[in-house]
Amino acid sequence: MSDVLHATAPGRPEVPYPETLRWAPDGRAVEIIDQTHLPEAEVHLRLETAEQMVEAIQALRVRGAPAIGVAAALMLALDAAEHLSITSAALRARIAATAALLGAARPTAVNLAWAVERMRALTDALPRETPPDAIAEKLRAEADAIFAEDRAMCRKLGEHGLGLLPQDPLTVLTHCNAGALATAGMGTALAPLYLAHAAGRRVRVFADETRPLLQGSRITAWELQRAGIEVTVLTDNAAASLLRRERIDAVLVGADRIAANGDVANKIGTYPLAVLARRHGVPFYVLAPTSTVDPATPDGAAIPIEERGAVEIRRGFGRLTAPEDVPTYSPAFDVTPADLVDAIVTDRGVHYPPYDFSRGAP
Amino acid sequence: MSDVLHATAPGRPEVPYPETLRWAPDGRAVEIIDQTHLPEAEVHLRLETAEQMVEAIQALRVRGAPAIGVAAALMLALDAAEHLSITSAALRARIAATAALLGAARPTAVNLAWAVERMRALTDALPRETPPDAIAEKLRAEADAIFAEDRAMCRKLGEHGLGLLPQDPLTVLTHCNAGALATAGMGTALAPLYLAHAAGRRVRVFADETRPLLQGSRITAWELQRAGIEVTVLTDNAAASLLRRERIDAVLVGADRIAANGDVANKIGTYPLAVLARRHGVPFYVLAPTSTVDPATPDGAAIPIEERGAVEIRRGFGRLTAPEDVPTYSPAFDVTPADLVDAIVTDRGVHYPPYDFSRGAP
Repeated sequence: MSDVLHATAPGRPEVPYPETLRWAPDGRAVEIIDQTHLPEAEVHLRLETAEQMVEAIQALRVRGAPAIGVAAALMLALDAAEHLSITSAALRARIAATAALLGAARPTAVNLAWAVERMRALTDALPRETPPDAIAEKLRAEADAIFAEDRAMCRKLGEHGLGLLPQDPLTVLTHCNAGALATAGMGTALAPLYLAHAAGRRVRVFADETRPLLQGSRITAWELQRAGIEVTVLTDNAAASLLRRERIDAVLVGADRIAANGDVANKIGTYPLAVLARRHGVPFYVLAPTSTVDPATPDGAAIPIEERGAVEIRRGFGRLTAPEDVPTYSPAFDVTPADLVDAIVTDRGVHYPPYDFSRGAP
Repeated sequence: MSDVLHATAPGRPEVPYPETLRWAPDGRAVEIIDQTHLPEAEVHLRLETAEQMVEAIQALRVRGAPAIGVAAALMLALDAAEHLSITSAALRARIAATAALLGAARPTAVNLAWAVERMRALTDALPRETPPDAIAEKLRAEADAIFAEDRAMCRKLGEHGLGLLPQDPLTVLTHCNAGALATAGMGTALAPLYLAHAAGRRVRVFADETRPLLQGSRITAWELQRAGIEVTVLTDNAAASLLRRERIDAVLVGADRIAANGDVANKIGTYPLAVLARRHGVPFYVLAPTSTVDPATPDGAAIPIEERGAVEIRRGFGRLTAPEDVPTYSPAFDVTPADLVDAIVTDRGVHYPPYDFSRGAP
């Protein structure tokens, strides 16, 4: 079954980013890096059933909208390949049920529903008489295509982003994790950095720890360090001093949703970073797949902002760090107004203000 | 010995701030709130010896420059009162030794050295024939005076600050802990809030948690909640969203040093807060005792900034939250330029820009 692995990931990646997920060498499981153990340990989990994958997605063992879409597609293909001794009709029914199970693992992640629906639609479109092994083969090819497309999207983001960053050494500040571990490829905001590093340029990254869930110190720092890229961690509130003290070439961040006017919703703490970058004359760039642009949302005010639970602030690391019953204010995201965003980089290219995505994604 | 308690703290405080330190009811110990247990538990420690006080100061059980100065003065008086059966000369030698011990507990806190020196100078000025009990009595009176002056300083800061905050309800944002637990009185930046609350006005406080050491969520939230003042905790990176969403009447912070031109060194994260307050049209006020103003420091660039150790970022809560060996950038303080400070409030009054403290503290 190593052919499958080969087809999915032809050769080693040219840049040394961690593989968030991959086919197991025997082709009978999906292997993921269990991100809940980072940075304490690099634990690879072997997932053989859809139920195991649902648990892994819900527990954030695998996270990042692009990554969980690919993970679900791979598991759907695997589940079909492991059930070839039933009739075609029974296999189709099983695929529909498994697709529903995986698709419901996290209701808000658009890519998950999209990937599962794409796999299901392919199955529906096959002729009724298609034998089980042919159905499974088609699903495997489709899952591999979804995987490859995600990797290609990341690379495109990296190439377009790199055009904005001619400096060597290249010194950037980033927030949260918009890296390899959020995708099946080399990430979104971090993709240009992996490419620059692979090209032999010196790359220095400052990573905000990103309270409350510390994706910056736990995940971004881990994946960059593992790739041999210089990374320094700072508390979110030290970024202003850094921008004043160091020559920072750019601030690079991902996005959760981009409105038609270019307003950007991203992890809490992104907006103040944009304000401070502007004050210190440092370009502020947003890197995200085209699918993140939502022409139906006119501006940032129309983006609903999820509020997180108090426990992440009061007891985020196993110790009580605030009074047990104190109220908290904990929006998961903030909105950076378009006028503070110097460029939006998608897999299709670099976009400059004034932004107008009202007629479709760029 | 309850007379001593009475003399030190005449009646209950009119405002319900926690007592950072006080004479024990029997007058034979200094009682402190052990701040290392906050917010998990309110532990009162009874300190009977100078050695115990040194340990408490070094372990940050009692912290805040004003508070540790008062604590050392009280302990010096207590130590003398507990050693009356020796000769006057022996007692004087003992006082000098104990003063040296207490004064060296933390070398950087100016108030500690100042308070200890004031007690020692008083002893030196007494006639040689002064009997031991009279020496001890003078020291007790001086310690009580230092205590009372610190409380009066806080109240003055509160009164002057309150003049800037006529709103009811009053909604403010603060950073770190510039409260009662940093002083022997009702705090510096939080003093106006205690006064407003005591006057029956509704006061709402948003407290930045203040990474890395979380003085905001651990200490400020605890003392305000205990006083019955509404407090909400937020991560430092959420302050920008708060300033956009809520009507905040003012940002109130303390200061570690104020330069002659009005530049303010304070806990890391203060400077970005000032930038964001200005962007959102919210007044930014600094409250600090006159002793914080340093006419010999021309501007913020001349203020040395202490760098903290990596462990506070990597393992601040007992759990590893960043790769074990990742470098960190962790300045303890930042500098807010004077042009972002709408007023500096000292115990002598309210000062507006342009600031010029080059000929002395205001």
